[in-house]
Amino acid sequence: MKTPVVIAVAGAAGQISYSLLFRIVSGELFGLEQPIILRLLEITPSLEKLHGVVMELNDCAYPLLQKVIPTDDSRVAFKDADYVFLAGAKPRKMGMKRKDLLASNALIFAEQGKALNEVASRHVKVLVTGNPANTNALITQRNAPDLSPSCFAAMSMLDHNRAISQLAEKCGVRSKDIKNIIIWGNHSETQYPDLHHATVKGQNAFALVEDEWITEYFIPTVQHRGAAIIGARGLSSAASAANAAIDQMRAWTLGTQNNDWVSMAVFADGSYGIENGLFYSFPVRVSAEGEVTIVSDLQIDAFSLMRMQVSERELKEERMAVQHLL
Amino acid sequence: MKTPVVIAVAGAAGQISYSLLFRIVSGELFGLEQPIILRLLEITPSLEKLHGVVMELNDCAYPLLQKVIPTDDSRVAFKDADYVFLAGAKPRKMGMKRKDLLASNALIFAEQGKALNEVASRHVKVLVTGNPANTNALITQRNAPDLSPSCFAAMSMLDHNRAISQLAEKCGVRSKDIKNIIIWGNHSETQYPDLHHATVKGQNAFALVEDEWITEYFIPTVQHRGAAIIGARGLSSAASAANAAIDQMRAWTLGTQNNDWVSMAVFADGSYGIENGLFYSFPVRVSAEGEVTIVSDLQIDAFSLMRMQVSERELKEERMAVQHLL
Repeated sequence: MKTPVVIAVAGAAGQISYSLLFRIVSGELFGLEQPIILRLLEITPSLEKLHGVVMELNDCAYPLLQKVIPTDDSRVAFKDADYVFLAGAKPRKMGMKRKDLLASNALIFAEQGKALNEVASRHVKVLVTGNPANTNALITQRNAPDLSPSCFAAMSMLDHNRAISQLAEKCGVRSKDIKNIIIWGNHSETQYPDLHHATVKGQNAFALVEDEWITEYFIPTVQHRGAAIIGARGLSSAASAANAAIDQMRAWTLGTQNNDWVSMAVFADGSYGIENGLFYSFPVRVSAEGEVTIVSDLQIDAFSLMRMQVSERELKEERMAVQHLL
Repeated sequence: MKTPVVIAVAGAAGQISYSLLFRIVSGELFGLEQPIILRLLEITPSLEKLHGVVMELNDCAYPLLQKVIPTDDSRVAFKDADYVFLAGAKPRKMGMKRKDLLASNALIFAEQGKALNEVASRHVKVLVTGNPANTNALITQRNAPDLSPSCFAAMSMLDHNRAISQLAEKCGVRSKDIKNIIIWGNHSETQYPDLHHATVKGQNAFALVEDEWITEYFIPTVQHRGAAIIGARGLSSAASAANAAIDQMRAWTLGTQNNDWVSMAVFADGSYGIENGLFYSFPVRVSAEGEVTIVSDLQIDAFSLMRMQVSERELKEERMAVQHLL
């Protein structure tokens, strides 16, 4: 057995966590040989509910779960944490815009950034899923100046998987036949799901689908998928978001496949003219040691560039709204 | 890649299924080489919500998921099904007794039994998790006379795991250090969690804990755990129930470990004097081919026998209440 890793989850009594925690400790994230210490953070009023989740975790008799520590103190939760999922944002309700979420969630992430800065492992990987995820990642990172910006990412993997699924369905193939999908920008309705570099069983996707399908169906479907799920379920995506969080943290830790990349919202390095320091979703390759590199040499046409910039603009506006916390 | 298996889930838009489905198709049940066709059954008013779940399943771009078929027709859902989870019972609400559930759920299981009888694989494994699970298993099995009674089981694995967890915590060991726990009887508050044969790191559990802890703490804690979870979460166990369903179906299919057994509520064969044909939880061993054998040669003392019979009596009473459906 390996040395246990410390995994912290904020918003641990919430819906995404309820789908996430049981999969993490069953071994889906790092395999059946990796023991886990779980630290679970909640706001004080949710501690009783969190206690119920801890009871259920214990009731699974998981062989890998060494210890589970529930707390309302972010410094306890993040102490020596190797992997952190920040899922602790209020979920979007039916008809609610992402921007309404900004103000109510920003303070939480500033506080969590400070705590991470003080007590987390210096090699921590912090994945933000709570919306607005990109700007929450920015707030968190700016409040943790002693940690490398490469310790932080926001989740694009849900959009990435949604795009794969739509293209696979359209082409009548399986999801594993699709490679090199890209999600650019913000995890919001301005995101740009890009098929220019995607392949379907090795063939360029553009040769297989109509332009009109891309602009009239594919792009808006992926962009508005979150709202469509809320429309059908009456609740925001939880199980698929948790699944994507596992996919993204696994890729971030164990690396991407040779012939593929994933989309991750990371600290922008100036690639493609996107402003340095924004958390923006790019195609990235990850080494087996967990080193992330933005794929920076792709040809971008005017159609794509315009969409990429729309999403960048939105991220700058979101940043403006939380300037006092940066 | 292997030939796909057909897995059907009834009550597919419910809480347990929401925790179950995403883990099944990620490969937790039968591994990363086993493709899956998923058939999802719901009542007509829940089809829209089920549609949302299907959207989320697609949004995970699971490599193993070949096809997902949502339906409100049990004959479509169970067609050629190899593995069936019957989770489609109304969940128990705070303060509600299990018996109140009986009447409202019995008809559903009679109907599902008839459909299984007509269209399921002749080697189907049907695991009932919807409460009252044992009597629902009985109703289902009696309405499927062309299938072997060995095709049916009710879930005791949640109680089994809960008992392991309590004993492990008491002894300060890990769950995998605990072997040979037994849950006898009904998945209800009359169940009897039995430590007489349990071992902790190879030592007899009885030598390690006080009698008073067993009678005053261990037995009632396991018996009433469901209600305690509802008290803390405000909702009945879903993630831990789904986890146990995976554990039980996996053990039922791939076999138990050499030096251990699991508890499963199966068609009683007269062992320990329990009435033939009741669905009663016994310790069972399962071969690598999925053949279940009740462990029938254990020494039972008067303390245990009395408790085993209390739970048997309750199962007979429940059977009486649904006699018209058998």
